[in-house]
Amino acid sequence: MLKELIIDDYGVNLHKVSERLVLKKHGKVVEEHAIKEMQDLVIGNKCGMVSISLLQELIGNGTQIHFVDFKEEPFTTLYAPGHHGSVKARREQLIAYHDNRGVALAKEIITTKILNQINTIKYFMKSRRGHAIEEELKILIDAMKFHNQKIKNVQGETIEQVRKEIVSIEAHAAKRYWKAVKLILEEKGLEFPGRSWQLQEPVNMMFNYGYAILRTRVTSAIIRAGLETYAGFFHVDRSGRISFVLDVMEIFRPSIVDRPVISLITRGHKPEIEEKEDGSFYLSGKTLKLLRESINNRLESKEEFKGNDYFLRTIIQLQVRDIASFFRENKKFKGYISRW
Amino acid sequence: MLKELIIDDYGVNLHKVSERLVLKKHGKVVEEHAIKEMQDLVIGNKCGMVSISLLQELIGNGTQIHFVDFKEEPFTTLYAPGHHGSVKARREQLIAYHDNRGVALAKEIITTKILNQINTIKYFMKSRRGHAIEEELKILIDAMKFHNQKIKNVQGETIEQVRKEIVSIEAHAAKRYWKAVKLILEEKGLEFPGRSWQLQEPVNMMFNYGYAILRTRVTSAIIRAGLETYAGFFHVDRSGRISFVLDVMEIFRPSIVDRPVISLITRGHKPEIEEKEDGSFYLSGKTLKLLRESINNRLESKEEFKGNDYFLRTIIQLQVRDIASFFRENKKFKGYISRW
Repeated sequence: MLKELIIDDYGVNLHKVSERLVLKKHGKVVEEHAIKEMQDLVIGNKCGMVSISLLQELIGNGTQIHFVDFKEEPFTTLYAPGHHGSVKARREQLIAYHDNRGVALAKEIITTKILNQINTIKYFMKSRRGHAIEEELKILIDAMKFHNQKIKNVQGETIEQVRKEIVSIEAHAAKRYWKAVKLILEEKGLEFPGRSWQLQEPVNMMFNYGYAILRTRVTSAIIRAGLETYAGFFHVDRSGRISFVLDVMEIFRPSIVDRPVISLITRGHKPEIEEKEDGSFYLSGKTLKLLRESINNRLESKEEFKGNDYFLRTIIQLQVRDIASFFRENKKFKGYISRW
Repeated sequence: MLKELIIDDYGVNLHKVSERLVLKKHGKVVEEHAIKEMQDLVIGNKCGMVSISLLQELIGNGTQIHFVDFKEEPFTTLYAPGHHGSVKARREQLIAYHDNRGVALAKEIITTKILNQINTIKYFMKSRRGHAIEEELKILIDAMKFHNQKIKNVQGETIEQVRKEIVSIEAHAAKRYWKAVKLILEEKGLEFPGRSWQLQEPVNMMFNYGYAILRTRVTSAIIRAGLETYAGFFHVDRSGRISFVLDVMEIFRPSIVDRPVISLITRGHKPEIEEKEDGSFYLSGKTLKLLRESINNRLESKEEFKGNDYFLRTIIQLQVRDIASFFRENKKFKGYISRW
C-alpha cells in the first residue's frame, strides 16, 4: 500500500462504488481507483463533494486523507486512530524536549540540511564547470562547510539551552546557500531578490508551493510513525504550529523542493504570476502544473539509502521511522544525505 | 460558539452557501444553519455527500467535525491545528505518566466515578422509598463507599506502580453498582444479565450506544483543551486506543449515560433489537431515537458547578480544561460530582 493520489479538478465529486474510489464530473465517471492500494489521498479544494461512505471506507483502509487549499497547504488531515500507533513514541518525543536527545536530534537535522544544501549547489555546479560563477559558488560552499563544522561543538543539556546557537549556525549557512541559488538563477537572466516567505514574487512563491507539497508528505509520515506533528525541537512551539513537521522538512527541503524548482527555471521556464480580482497574486496554472509534476517526479526518483535503492518519497517515511526508533529505543539517528 | 449539530438522515447532502451550512435532500433545501455559531458537527454515515468547501469553511471557523458510524462510534474527527492549542499541556500530560501526577489524577477520576455511581443509585432510590429493594440498594451503596475509601490510601510514584490497585478498587465498586442497576431494572420486570461490552442484548447495547455519544463529546473537549486523546493513565496504552478519552469518560458515565438509560427503561420503554441480514443485531430505530433524545436532554440540562449553573455538556469542557490546568500549572484537579 504505497500509492498516493492527488485529486484537484473543478467540480469533481468523489464517490465510493464497492471498494473503489470513483470520480465523477457532471454525473459521468472520469476515473476509478482501488481503495485497497491507497496510502494517501490528497483532495484539493477545487473538488466538489465527497461521500461520507467513501471517507469511512478510506479511514477503515488506513488511507490518510489530506485536504489542501489552492496553495497546496493542507488545511486538515483525516486518519484512523489505529494508524497513529501507540503513544509510546510520542511520549518519548515530548520527554526528549527536556533531555539531550532533543539537542542531538536538532544538531543532526540541521547538519543534514546544510549538507543537502551543499549537495544541491554541487549538483548545479556539475554542468557549470568553467562558468564565471564557479569560483564564487566554491567559496560559498566552503563558507557553508565552515559553519556546518560548528554544529559538532554545540553542547547543552536541553534544546532550549542551545536553540539560539543552532539557529544562528543554520542562518549563516542559509545566507550563503541562498546567495548561491541567486547566482545560479541570475546567470540565466532571472531576477531573484533572495529567499523570503512573504514576498509576492514568482520564484519565492514556487518555493513556498513546493514546501507545501513536502509538508503534506512529511505530515503523513509523522502521523504514520505515531509521532506528534506539533512537538518540534529546532522550531519553537507555538499554538497550532506543526513545529515537528517543520523540523523534519529541513532534511528534505534542498533536495526534494529546491533542486526541482531551480532546475525548472534554469531549464528555461519563466514562472508567471497572475493577479486575482481581490488584488492578491498567485502562480499561473501553467507554472503550478509544471512545478507539481516536477516535484512529484523528484519524489518518484530513486536514491540509495542504507545500501538499497528507494523512492525519495519512501526515504521520507524511513527517516521518520528512524526518528521514532531514536525516541523509543535510543537508536542513533543518521540524517539522509542526498546524492548530487 | 457552543452549538452542536447532529446530522444523520438518509441521503442528506451537506453544502456550503455563503457562510451557511445547507442541507439538501433530492436537490431541495431541508435545513440551514449558520456556521459561525457551530462548535461541533456530528455527521452520521447515513448522510450522502459533503462539500469540500464546507469542510474548509468549518475548519477555518474552528468547528470540529466528527464522523460517526451507525453505532454513534466516531470513526474520525477533523479539526483545525490552531484549535488543538500549543503542545505544552500535552507535553506535561505525557510526562505526568512518569511522575505522581498520573497517580493523583487516576485516583481523583476513579473516586469521582464511584461517587457518581453512588449518586445515580441514590437518584433512583428517591422514588423507591419503602420498596422491597431499598434495603439491598443501601447495602450496595455502603459497600461502594467502603471500596471508595480505599482510593485515598493508594500510594505510589507512578501510575504503573498503582494501576492494578486502582483497577481492583474500581472493579469492586462496579460490581456493586451494576448489581444495584440490575435490581432497579428487574423490579420493573426487565431482565438484565449484568454489564457487558460484548453481549448482543438490548440493555447493554443501549449503554454502549450512550457511551459512544459521550465519547464524541469527551474527545471534542480533549482536543479543544490541547490534550492528547491517546495518553491515558487509568486505561492502559494500546495502539489506536484513545485511552485518555476513556479515562475522562469515567467521570461522566454514571450521570450522563447510565441515568437516562435506566430512566428510559424504568419509565416503561421496552428496548427492542432487530436482526440484520448478516445475523448481527442492532437496536431498533425507535429505541435509538428515544435514547439519543434522552441523552441529549441530559447534556442540555443544567447543574451547579463551582457556584454557577452550567449545561452538563459545558461541565465536560470545564472539567477537561481543569485537567489541562492541572498538567500545565499543577492546579489541583477536583472531579465533578453530579447531583442526585
